Amino acid sequence: MNTHFRHVALVGKYFVPVGEAQADTVRATMAEIAAFLHGQGCRVSMEAATAAGSGLDFPALDAEGIGRECDLALVVGGDGTMLGIGRELAQYATPLIGINQGRLGFITDIALDNYANTLAPMLAGLYTEDRRSLMEAQVIREGKVVFEAPAMNDVVVNRGATSGMVELRVKVDGHFVASQRADGLIIASPTGSTAYSLSAGGPMLHPSLPGWVLVPIAPHMLSNRPIVLADASEIEVELVAGRGASANFDMQSLASLLHGDRVLVRRSQHQARFLHPLGWNYFDTLRRKLHWNEGA
Amino acid sequence: MNTHFRHVALVGKYFVPVGEAQADTVRATMAEIAAFLHGQGCRVSMEAATAAGSGLDFPALDAEGIGRECDLALVVGGDGTMLGIGRELAQYATPLIGINQGRLGFITDIALDNYANTLAPMLAGLYTEDRRSLMEAQVIREGKVVFEAPAMNDVVVNRGATSGMVELRVKVDGHFVASQRADGLIIASPTGSTAYSLSAGGPMLHPSLPGWVLVPIAPHMLSNRPIVLADASEIEVELVAGRGASANFDMQSLASLLHGDRVLVRRSQHQARFLHPLGWNYFDTLRRKLHWNEGA
Amino acid sequence: MNTHFRHVALVGKYFVPVGEAQADTVRATMAEIAAFLHGQGCRVSMEAATAAGSGLDFPALDAEGIGRECDLALVVGGDGTMLGIGRELAQYATPLIGINQGRLGFITDIALDNYANTLAPMLAGLYTEDRRSLMEAQVIREGKVVFEAPAMNDVVVNRGATSGMVELRVKVDGHFVASQRADGLIIASPTGSTAYSLSAGGPMLHPSLPGWVLVPIAPHMLSNRPIVLADASEIEVELVAGRGASANFDMQSLASLLHGDRVLVRRSQHQARFLHPLGWNYFDTLRRKLHWNEGA
Amino acid sequence: MNTHFRHVALVGKYFVPVGEAQADTVRATMAEIAAFLHGQGCRVSMEAATAAGSGLDFPALDAEGIGRECDLALVVGGDGTMLGIGRELAQYATPLIGINQGRLGFITDIALDNYANTLAPMLAGLYTEDRRSLMEAQVIREGKVVFEAPAMNDVVVNRGATSGMVELRVKVDGHFVASQRADGLIIASPTGSTAYSLSAGGPMLHPSLPGWVLVPIAPHMLSNRPIVLADASEIEVELVAGRGASANFDMQSLASLLHGDRVLVRRSQHQARFLHPLGWNYFDTLRRKLHWNEGA
Repeated sequence: MNTHFRHVALVGKYFVPVGEAQADTVRATMAEIAAFLHGQGCRVSMEAATAAGSGLDFPALDAEGIGRECDLALVVGGDGTMLGIGRELAQYATPLIGINQGRLGFITDIALDNYANTLAPMLAGLYTEDRRSLMEAQVIREGKVVFEAPAMNDVVVNRGATSGMVELRVKVDGHFVASQRADGLIIASPTGSTAYSLSAGGPMLHPSLPGWVLVPIAPHMLSNRPIVLADASEIEVELVAGRGASANFDMQSLASLLHGDRVLVRRSQHQARFLHPLGWNYFDTLRRKLHWNEGA
Repeated sequence: MNTHFRHVALVGKYFVPVGEAQADTVRATMAEIAAFLHGQGCRVSMEAATAAGSGLDFPALDAEGIGRECDLALVVGGDGTMLGIGRELAQYATPLIGINQGRLGFITDIALDNYANTLAPMLAGLYTEDRRSLMEAQVIREGKVVFEAPAMNDVVVNRGATSGMVELRVKVDGHFVASQRADGLIIASPTGSTAYSLSAGGPMLHPSLPGWVLVPIAPHMLSNRPIVLADASEIEVELVAGRGASANFDMQSLASLLHGDRVLVRRSQHQARFLHPLGWNYFDTLRRKLHWNEGA
Repeated sequence: MNTHFRHVALVGKYFVPVGEAQADTVRATMAEIAAFLHGQGCRVSMEAATAAGSGLDFPALDAEGIGRECDLALVVGGDGTMLGIGRELAQYATPLIGINQGRLGFITDIALDNYANTLAPMLAGLYTEDRRSLMEAQVIREGKVVFEAPAMNDVVVNRGATSGMVELRVKVDGHFVASQRADGLIIASPTGSTAYSLSAGGPMLHPSLPGWVLVPIAPHMLSNRPIVLADASEIEVELVAGRGASANFDMQSLASLLHGDRVLVRRSQHQARFLHPLGWNYFDTLRRKLHWNEGA
Repeated sequence: MNTHFRHVALVGKYFVPVGEAQADTVRATMAEIAAFLHGQGCRVSMEAATAAGSGLDFPALDAEGIGRECDLALVVGGDGTMLGIGRELAQYATPLIGINQGRLGFITDIALDNYANTLAPMLAGLYTEDRRSLMEAQVIREGKVVFEAPAMNDVVVNRGATSGMVELRVKVDGHFVASQRADGLIIASPTGSTAYSLSAGGPMLHPSLPGWVLVPIAPHMLSNRPIVLADASEIEVELVAGRGASANFDMQSLASLLHGDRVLVRRSQHQARFLHPLGWNYFDTLRRKLHWNEGA
């Protein structure tokens, strides 16, 4: 059989920590999927942490290695796992497919039960590609970059846990937008617009929209409503007041902020490439995840 | 003196009905502005309804005439007047400048008090251009277009006044999105995102964003939240249930809807061209209109 | 067997119109439930429209007759049917029990499948009583009452279908609260707080709260947020501007409004009495209706 | 001259820390007001921290002393100062009057400029009383009360600054309501309903409403909307999951929470008594604070 993707990297839940109890199941699942991939004519490597965690005997590659050598990353896990590795592979333009063991996610939408039937045509080249924009964020302190991180979902500036609101001074492309007092401010991509941003009152952004949304969290002024910006804009958020504030990036990396620190967010030149079965459509996912099929 | 715009059309509040009491003031204002334009070396015509209403003796042109013959439309009125004539002039790419007699608007941002100082450099070519997307909307009944209208702010599908919710079936680019039961649904452009859409819970869209926002009005399902779409998408809203429903376009033209009618919304190939003084910035307007400068 | 309720009125879906197709099923159901009630030692009458519609041979009583003669109204239908008859029986303090043929409602929470097991102990006196406040509303024109209606869910003042916002002047206990421009204004009871009011952005009110909530629909000012008032207050809403406006009461009765008309809302001295199985709790219903059990 | 309040305690901004620069101004203001009170026939004491901070020579009393000995507390400061001392004086039923040096607050509504004209009739007994409910909150760990605090505005359970959502299990009067995943949960009184709760999407509660509102902060489920409860209810919030969580009480006292800790909130048997000039009305304050008078 002819595969469209000669060298596939398997990325498992080991990429994020799992309990011991789950480890055996995951290992068996990974071994089975690897065998399936071999059967489809693929060479199989394994993401390094996944390999170490599972004890399975495959050539191990770190994210850079996957990016340089593999034609596809097959992720077995939830949206968090997929976003984590997707963020790193974007610069290599490596496509990703997500298999989900539990409730299907926004981007991991292939059920483990039935993966073989779904994957076979995809490996043969029959798929829908879904490109997602990435943000590049920096923290600037006294003119120097003190922290840097990419983000697929969101960049969030947050008050400290035990203090009152932060005051943030927002600029877009160097132009003053507003001073906001709030619990924080979310800058979300279309991918992140259905996550924390939605909880804080933001709109959903279709993945094809070249935009970010700025969503204040519990803002003091009621007219500080979400604003959607073209993603070509550079967004700057300066911490003016508030103790214990921090910035986080996809809830995974974190920077403490001092007064005067500025968080800069720009669009990355890279995009993550998620592959879905033919016929996949974003709105089907939205309907399923938001329970729009059910009455109320 | 050298003007950048040789032939200017004056468009006044007569374009929309005003009370008798205001008529004299408006007439005097228009005459004064016309004299100013002559002094700047411009030839001056007048929008036909404005000419008729004011009784001023200028060559009268309808919207088509202005579009074909004039280099600029100078609007004296509020945002409503500006949007009304802007919608018609978009196809001719005629630029517009708005002078506001009352509280400054989102797009009519030159105060009447000080118009001469502000206009002089603009007429000399020193201005910032602010292009706004337009929608083209159609109502389709049994396969035929039964109504057609452009819209700069929004297309709104509404329940009847004395009946319960409508049920709407929304598609984007032919793909089913959701069935919504609600008071109605707003499809707003960036320009319209600060109008009715904002009242109904929608986000603000920056004018440079190539997107529309779909905002359900008082939706039955709490997860039917605003969605921002790329404006290259074609949006279809079908009336499935509900009596007395209608579609309106910038709250100016109106179509009654029958069950099975579909409202289609596409991006127009034309854009309205609004000119602002140099240094104008959208966020300054937003701050002023939403009272972000004030404490609370 | 000893019943707590000697004379029971059966109220069916005929109280609201149903399609012919459903009529046979409803008739059979009603006959079966009547037989069950006889078996429990109850005398059975039937609400007049239900009797006429079903053609079943029981003594027919209108709402007043039920109120005067019966010890219990057993409603077979949805929340709408229950609210409709509940509103009329409140003045007689007649208790109601609701059996639901379809998806369980907020107040009709006994499934038809299993009604006998659930009803038997209730008829024997083992039940939880859930009292709901009623509103009395009047429309005042030039000092005279021109319309009067009770409401269990809400009183809604609405703009016309094809016109812009209404302007409403709100007073509470004679004190000016605010002038609001909006699509309309909802005054909801705790019972109504999970209906239209919730769609328009209002909070849920627990049935034991002696309060109403005022919820503006798509208000022009973003700070016009829902306000919860003690239900001892008298609320007055005056129509100041807007064409085609109307007031509706539980979406069932309707009054056209002229400028200067005032809608007055007061708490009724009566309450509706809904009976539920022992162990019933409002929050269980809320969780079920709002799908709080499901993940997302 | 005859005063209704023989012994008045002056409470100043020293009760909360102020910068050195402001100290002189505050001292002069307090001395002047004290002289005015003497002139009205009042005996004047001073809250201990205010006395210490200002260096003014008046008999100093702590909150308990004021509660036991004084007939009135005259607060010079903002809403925060007023709430702080009001919370402590509630158990003594000592009335409070608030003079505000800056922008008028919700409860400190007498302008410093004009205090003498406003205070004179109030001291003579001409005032409107505005009673506010208090909460009593406890943190229970393994069956023991480990923290206790009153609150006038709100009790807030919060996630840690650098962690994701908390999971909270809410009960009312011992009955399970919902498990909520969110940034946190606010339980606000009518007084607190216009503070943090409003920012998080809660409704306003009129002070005469015997209710609390539960407002989730950025909840994961979109149907987790604010709920208003009768204040006779006991509310229990258990921390089920989430690191670094804490509970705060009027943003002034703070308790770290462990998994399994329960925060209990009940209505206090005491109420704060705020006095306003005759003719004062809550809605006038609301209109002023929320800028309802201005157009938009």
